[in-house]
Parts: sequence; structure tokens; C-alpha cells
Amino acid sequence: MSIEVDLVTSYWTTAEDRAWDAFGALVAEDVVYEAPQSRERVRGRSAYVRFNREGFSGAWHAQIVKIVGGDGAAASWVSFTDPDGTVQSGLSFFEIDEHNLIARITDFWPEPYEPPPSRAHLVERY
Amino acid sequence: MSIEVDLVTSYWTTAEDRAWDAFGALVAEDVVYEAPQSRERVRGRSAYVRFNREGFSGAWHAQIVKIVGGDGAAASWVSFTDPDGTVQSGLSFFEIDEHNLIARITDFWPEPYEPPPSRAHLVERY
Repeated sequence: MSIEVDLVTSYWTTAEDRAWDAFGALVAEDVVYEAPQSRERVRGRSAYVRFNREGFSGAWHAQIVKIVGGDGAAASWVSFTDPDGTVQSGLSFFEIDEHNLIARITDFWPEPYEPPPSRAHLVERY
Repeated sequence: MSIEVDLVTSYWTTAEDRAWDAFGALVAEDVVYEAPQSRERVRGRSAYVRFNREGFSGAWHAQIVKIVGGDGAAASWVSFTDPDGTVQSGLSFFEIDEHNLIARITDFWPEPYEPPPSRAHLVERY
């Protein structure tokens, strides 16, 4: 397992465990988080830990589907279950600094949609 | 640049160029494409080339934002501009086989959303 994959695996397992001190130790002091869909941004380790600890309360669960990484970058795909049981995919891109800390996180939360009929003859549904 | 990053860079540049023979040569004969949001699936090289060539007509453009990869897997983040000018992020995960061909593609197309007020005190907007 590469350093990048190992680091992002720890990111999700410490989040799932609500091990916030260990989670915070994985990100740089000046970490920047961005959510392009909602145009939310969080700057700095303590604000980012607080965002995760307080922004998503209740019995949510994050299960790793796939993590890829190399050359100081990584991406993860997790299956996120809300406290109400809703399951959603979360896609995150990570930049990793020279101290092997996560310096930048950008994540995306896509929703289900119905595909256009114009391409129905080109696909199967599952 | 790793083999994985190089391959996925070619995937997007050949798609952008509508160089469909070159695009098809990057994917395995039995490639499987899935879009979890719409539960669409396409199986096989010729069907997958046709899906891309005919399923998305008009003057769309795909610009690479980030590609990460290693250990036979990769992920890309592209900025996709529809013919009508709408810009959307596309996130794709790739599995790469022992012949350095793309064997599996899973992609996601998230939409903008308004964040919940409950976490407004924990973020800035941009």
C-alpha cells in the first residue's frame, strides 16, 4: 500500500471511529477543505476537525469503497450512510505535503438522477 | 508521471479530440462502465465507444483538473462544459488491467446544492 493510500485510509478510519485527535494529526496545520458543490471552505486544522466533529452529528458511517494514490495525491470513494439510513457516495481528492500530511481536501457528494432517454439505447440499467 | 496517470490523461485527451479509435484502444475488450447515480452500465469496447461518441453529442469539452493514480488504479476530476455552456465536475475511478488497458470505469456527476444552515457557523462560502 502506498503512503498516500495508507494516509487516506487512516483519514476515513479515524473519522469513522470519531478519533478526532488522531484524525487531526493527519492533516496539515494550514489544511484547506473545499466542497465545490456548495462552495463551502474550511481553513486550518482546528476548524477542520470541528467541522467534521460538529457538522455531521448522529450515527453516520463512512465505509471505504476505493482509495487510489501516488505522487503526493490521492482520491477516495466512500459509501456514506446518514443517521436516517440514506446511503450516498462521497468522492474526495487529497493533496499530501512533504511531511506526509493532508494539505488539501476537495470533496463531492453526487445524488441519484434519471438518465436522459436520448441515450437509453446505448446502456443497460442496473 | 505514472503509467496510470498517463493512461487516464490519454483517455480524456482522446475523448476531447473525438479520436474514437485511439480512445477505444485505451480500454479493454471487455471494459465495464457504470454510473452509480443513474444506474447505467455499458459493457464492451465497441458499446463503450459508441456510448461516448453518440451519447454526448454537440460541442462539449472536458478539461482535466486532476488525475491521481498508482497500483493499477486511477481517479480523475474533470471540468465538463456542456454544449449549452453549463460547467459540471466529473469524477471517475478507473481499474487498469495487466495489459495497461482500462478495464473498469465508474463515474459521478455531482450537482450544486445549498448547504444546511446547521453548519453555516463552521464554514466560509466562496
